[in-house]
Amino acid sequence: MTSTADAPRSPGRPRSVRADEAIIEATLDLLAEGSTIEALSIEAIASRAGVGKATIYRRWPGKDALLLDALRRLKGILPQPAGHSVRDDLVLLVGAVGHNIDPRAAKIMPCLVPEVNRSPDHFQLYQNIIEPRRHMMREVLRRGIRIGELRADLDVEVTMALLTGPMLIQRMLRWHPELDDLILPERVVDAVLEGIRAR
Amino acid sequence: MTSTADAPRSPGRPRSVRADEAIIEATLDLLAEGSTIEALSIEAIASRAGVGKATIYRRWPGKDALLLDALRRLKGILPQPAGHSVRDDLVLLVGAVGHNIDPRAAKIMPCLVPEVNRSPDHFQLYQNIIEPRRHMMREVLRRGIRIGELRADLDVEVTMALLTGPMLIQRMLRWHPELDDLILPERVVDAVLEGIRAR
Repeated sequence: MTSTADAPRSPGRPRSVRADEAIIEATLDLLAEGSTIEALSIEAIASRAGVGKATIYRRWPGKDALLLDALRRLKGILPQPAGHSVRDDLVLLVGAVGHNIDPRAAKIMPCLVPEVNRSPDHFQLYQNIIEPRRHMMREVLRRGIRIGELRADLDVEVTMALLTGPMLIQRMLRWHPELDDLILPERVVDAVLEGIRAR
Repeated sequence: MTSTADAPRSPGRPRSVRADEAIIEATLDLLAEGSTIEALSIEAIASRAGVGKATIYRRWPGKDALLLDALRRLKGILPQPAGHSVRDDLVLLVGAVGHNIDPRAAKIMPCLVPEVNRSPDHFQLYQNIIEPRRHMMREVLRRGIRIGELRADLDVEVTMALLTGPMLIQRMLRWHPELDDLILPERVVDAVLEGIRAR
């Protein structure tokens, strides 16, 4: 293959971006089709994406780094709280819990649960995915405390579990068949706020 | 094999109880060793338990009924709220969420999550396991409303999700590595109560 580095760029996205996307897509397709994280190989991803293994290793140091990018893609970009009302920001973030923009997520995310429990590496991968989201919720709660809207003695970490848990069990397990996903974020936030709002 | 129906009973538990236990144990062993619910067969259970398939079918109409009994065994008996203090009863029930008396549960329960999502039958099985526990928590909350300790306009179902969700994500996923399982039930109940207690 001759180098095209000096040739004028063809229109559309650069080839390297197209390869990145093909690799991410191949990873998600294989997971959605039932591959476990453990069974997933760089070889299978390369073959599915129509690239060589070296192309993958030039971009990602290994499978876990690639998985992290792929799973983050699945979850979509982080919602951005507006920063005006603590309640509105919490409703936004709680509504994003367990919400994925990609339909493959419904097949992939529940299957991560057993893997998270089996392997410390996968547990770390899971933590790497959710920590930026937890961080964002933590900041909203801290701001609420600072501006006096929330109780000063609030346990921020327990409060995050209170806000996140109901949505996650509902979206991951349909824990209660009659709870409505759409109104649940507001209901959860209002119920929790009643307990944490400064009086 | 000759009938022993008229023979005097030998000491110890009746043979039929021993067979029941062997069948339940074999089911749990196979699941803990990594069998999916889908792959689990009555044949494999019979062989592992050292009984004939007919012995299983005399006791359970099919695999799902057997699984329901086996998974209930895994979770242990339902905790019995004392009925004195709403807070104490809720701490007891919240502490039992995701708690299993059997060490095999740590391998089996997380693996149910993908299966619950794949099959309506498994979803129903899961609901059959948790509904008696949800029912018990619902009764405590309703009693709290009746005696005036909890707000009369309380949304009981959302409140149950608030109480259950944090414990379940913590025990199933170790959602937040720094939250302490042991003190979480009291923290969760107190935080939720502040929001729902009648003033």
